[in-house]
Amino acid sequence: MGAEARDVPAAAGAAASHRTASDATALDVPSGRPAGVPTPAVGDARLARLALNQWTTREWSLREAVEGCVRAGLPAIGLWRDKVADAGLAESAKLVREAGLRVSSLCRGGFLTASEPAARAEAIADNRRAIEEAAALEAACLVLVVGGLPAEERDLPGARERVAEALAELAPYAGAHGVRLALEPLHPMYCADRAVLSTLDQALDLAEPHPVEQVGVVVDAFHVWWDPYLPAAIRRAGARIASFQICDWVLPLPADTLLARGMMGDGTIDFRAMAAMVEAAGYRGDIEVEIFNADVWSADPNAVVDTMKRRYVTELLG
Amino acid sequence: MGAEARDVPAAAGAAASHRTASDATALDVPSGRPAGVPTPAVGDARLARLALNQWTTREWSLREAVEGCVRAGLPAIGLWRDKVADAGLAESAKLVREAGLRVSSLCRGGFLTASEPAARAEAIADNRRAIEEAAALEAACLVLVVGGLPAEERDLPGARERVAEALAELAPYAGAHGVRLALEPLHPMYCADRAVLSTLDQALDLAEPHPVEQVGVVVDAFHVWWDPYLPAAIRRAGARIASFQICDWVLPLPADTLLARGMMGDGTIDFRAMAAMVEAAGYRGDIEVEIFNADVWSADPNAVVDTMKRRYVTELLG
Repeated sequence: MGAEARDVPAAAGAAASHRTASDATALDVPSGRPAGVPTPAVGDARLARLALNQWTTREWSLREAVEGCVRAGLPAIGLWRDKVADAGLAESAKLVREAGLRVSSLCRGGFLTASEPAARAEAIADNRRAIEEAAALEAACLVLVVGGLPAEERDLPGARERVAEALAELAPYAGAHGVRLALEPLHPMYCADRAVLSTLDQALDLAEPHPVEQVGVVVDAFHVWWDPYLPAAIRRAGARIASFQICDWVLPLPADTLLARGMMGDGTIDFRAMAAMVEAAGYRGDIEVEIFNADVWSADPNAVVDTMKRRYVTELLG
Repeated sequence: MGAEARDVPAAAGAAASHRTASDATALDVPSGRPAGVPTPAVGDARLARLALNQWTTREWSLREAVEGCVRAGLPAIGLWRDKVADAGLAESAKLVREAGLRVSSLCRGGFLTASEPAARAEAIADNRRAIEEAAALEAACLVLVVGGLPAEERDLPGARERVAEALAELAPYAGAHGVRLALEPLHPMYCADRAVLSTLDQALDLAEPHPVEQVGVVVDAFHVWWDPYLPAAIRRAGARIASFQICDWVLPLPADTLLARGMMGDGTIDFRAMAAMVEAAGYRGDIEVEIFNADVWSADPNAVVDTMKRRYVTELLG
């Protein structure tokens, strides 16, 4: 048997691993550690709020990701605009609707810090298109990554002010389309180049002037876990919480820090505590696994989905 | 002349570069960009508060760093315990005293997050020794880097609570020795492995129960520049500010993020704005340049000191 197993080609092995993932021999990816629990099966009530953000299985097309969610018994998917564009907007909407999936989020709009008028106008126009796409997809929210400091600029308060101004233009447009914008604070290590929005409290300050159904916030565990004021900020967020995303903080950071995210349980984040805080704040929406990680991306996507189901059970619900 | 210059050995060339650093041909290190201003000479009033943290010129021994400060007209030096130990505590104190230098800080104590009793006791004992060393050196403060999460632990609030408990033991000991502890918030990207103290406000919360002369805080530009609540936190800090350290945030981050610090002016930090806030809060102590950066460390230390003098003028005072 052992010799035969070694003769199975890699692709077939991956499929076999998927079919037998609930048995005791399954391995988590990318750690290679033995699975801690059987993989929850389709219909398992514990999966009722678990969503796959499709960049976690980046190799999959939108159609493949939708099929992967159905096969795994996941009720919701977080979509990315580039994948939606590849599949076509109408076709994407049809695929998720016919599969019976909720769209837990559309990623992403934002990048609103440009000081140059033409660049700013283009950013606003692109965000209006993103809002229209989110409406067509009936996404629970449109995630906004607000953008970093423009090249050669050092005026951080100025860049933050421009985000507030752009948001004031976009929020009513979102409201008119029945779309909720979700401001995502990114970890402070991305402040210079990705998002001048760095804490949940700052996101709530930014959201405050706008109706709660137009502007919410994202609680992404990776970005906010370190914040000493997180418990108070999550309580304060309450009904503003539009999305709860999870992945772990794993050291050492890779050279490309955008890919620093890990599978839940492989790092330092106490997901159970954070999930309890988000629950106590009143959030009842989907919990979306979003992992940017070269090792996760090179693993079999089915094995990634199976691992995330198990880790969701052991790390959040356990 | 050109051919002759190329024949000068590297060490002599470095010395020559130092001697002629105030002329128009000087190059900044490590950027290689032309110097923006002449290098301020010994006795220049603009240098009255500029301190060299000796890890910026890590290649230098304590004696060499003291001599380098005197040669460059810097009135103060930030010392590190390992370098002090190499030179001997009494000899180090004598060297800086006879050179007429202030000791702007001693780096560092801390690492107070251990949960295991023996490790915790050893940390307390080591911090008591550090306090005694700071007293012998008449350092303006003893910088505390509080430590990260212990291996395999995820209880961040618990680790933070242990820091508060250890501080309560150490503060009176510091007071009895006339030493001021300086709590250093580190950038949140170091929360897991270096310091669970992540913002200036958190440091102030931690300092609050203790007399201001026993427990202060460090404002290190690199660690706090991203904080949306920094202006309010610096105002709140007021007389708690025990140290103001500077270096720049330069992208991309290197693989070893501990070495991510850059020369002022090479990155995204608005030092003039931050220095104005620290000044308005009442801080009148030394401003210490602390750069951990492989390119800075491999440059001629004299050229590093000359560059930091010029950049201090152009980036903070200009």
